[in-house]
Amino acid sequence: MSSDGEHASFELGIKFGALFHQFVGTPVSEESAASLATAIEESIENQPYTESVTVTVDREALAADIGPYGYTGLAGRHLEVEIVVEEAGTRATGTMEMVDGYPLMCLETVE
Amino acid sequence: MSSDGEHASFELGIKFGALFHQFVGTPVSEESAASLATAIEESIENQPYTESVTVTVDREALAADIGPYGYTGLAGRHLEVEIVVEEAGTRATGTMEMVDGYPLMCLETVE
Amino acid sequence: MSSDGEHASFELGIKFGALFHQFVGTPVSEESAASLATAIEESIENQPYTESVTVTVDREALAADIGPYGYTGLAGRHLEVEIVVEEAGTRATGTMEMVDGYPLMCLETVE
Amino acid sequence: MSSDGEHASFELGIKFGALFHQFVGTPVSEESAASLATAIEESIENQPYTESVTVTVDREALAADIGPYGYTGLAGRHLEVEIVVEEAGTRATGTMEMVDGYPLMCLETVE
Repeated sequence: MSSDGEHASFELGIKFGALFHQFVGTPVSEESAASLATAIEESIENQPYTESVTVTVDREALAADIGPYGYTGLAGRHLEVEIVVEEAGTRATGTMEMVDGYPLMCLETVE
Repeated sequence: MSSDGEHASFELGIKFGALFHQFVGTPVSEESAASLATAIEESIENQPYTESVTVTVDREALAADIGPYGYTGLAGRHLEVEIVVEEAGTRATGTMEMVDGYPLMCLETVE
Repeated sequence: MSSDGEHASFELGIKFGALFHQFVGTPVSEESAASLATAIEESIENQPYTESVTVTVDREALAADIGPYGYTGLAGRHLEVEIVVEEAGTRATGTMEMVDGYPLMCLETVE
Repeated sequence: MSSDGEHASFELGIKFGALFHQFVGTPVSEESAASLATAIEESIENQPYTESVTVTVDREALAADIGPYGYTGLAGRHLEVEIVVEEAGTRATGTMEMVDGYPLMCLETVE
């Protein structure tokens, strides 16, 4: 009904959807960005089959959004994300990056 | 690098992760369950490649969790979900159901 | 230690924080805005002491943010909110509106 | 229309509602609890008028919920929270603790 590659890709997608919708809107400043990135990584790495989660905050994009109160809500444009899952010997890797102003989640490789 | 079936499965996973992590914790009662289910369906159906989202609230599971204040926070055990995505002619179908007390997201078919 | 007016104001603040952080980031389009607004109102009205929650989607602000995929993530700038709580005979009313590009939550009256 | 104490209490309530509804549902394990608690504290401390946020994870309550996959979703019963806000010379302090199985947010002092 479905292949190992499809299963690994499905699991990878779950992690991206979870990461984005759990954390978007979190109050974040230049000072608190590091602890938030670490918490996001360690949180999503708990999910089944997850090998690694790497979250980088785009400091320029974040600084551009900091308002009069010294912080903003976390948005897709502040993040670069790479996630690797491994299920039944198949590894799927994906990224989230800004493409045309939209935080695009991409399936990069399944092997 | 990756097949149509893998791409559709990845997109399907994104929708499940998004649905769960956007809405878990939402205050819900027996009276408000219907409007919440409708909003979840219409919200996630906005996402790219989504053909349909069907959310059923398990009324017994919900009633069992209603506390002294007449409501609870939405949890995986209150929901049965089916999502269908279609990308480039490939359709992937998945479900979320309780298995051993854990809200399991399953890739059902890719065709 | 604290007055009835302070208690009602505290309860009112909880509802605003809950509403904003539960629903920001939800996928929303011009078609799905109505069901989302209804679900938000009925959801937050479940919380203790809540008399009414009124959510209006700013259609112009929403339309301006709709991207290439026909939807966007719900943001503070898409919403006008009024919440009334009543506790121990004291009623507190608050609003959320955009002020200088920031979704400001204001305590309007306590009586 | 409203006193300094009422304003500070309203601001305090916002922080509790935000904290709870932003982070409930986050995947958490015994290993990742510390980084999540730090991120929650630093995140909510960004919000206006916030003097301090102290988040303690109840390790017993968390351990009791860890399922077959080694993690669970963060719930109110896993947290003890104290928040202090200060606005216009008035300080409001609140706590969130489990009372009768419900995560109760309490206004403790306004002074």
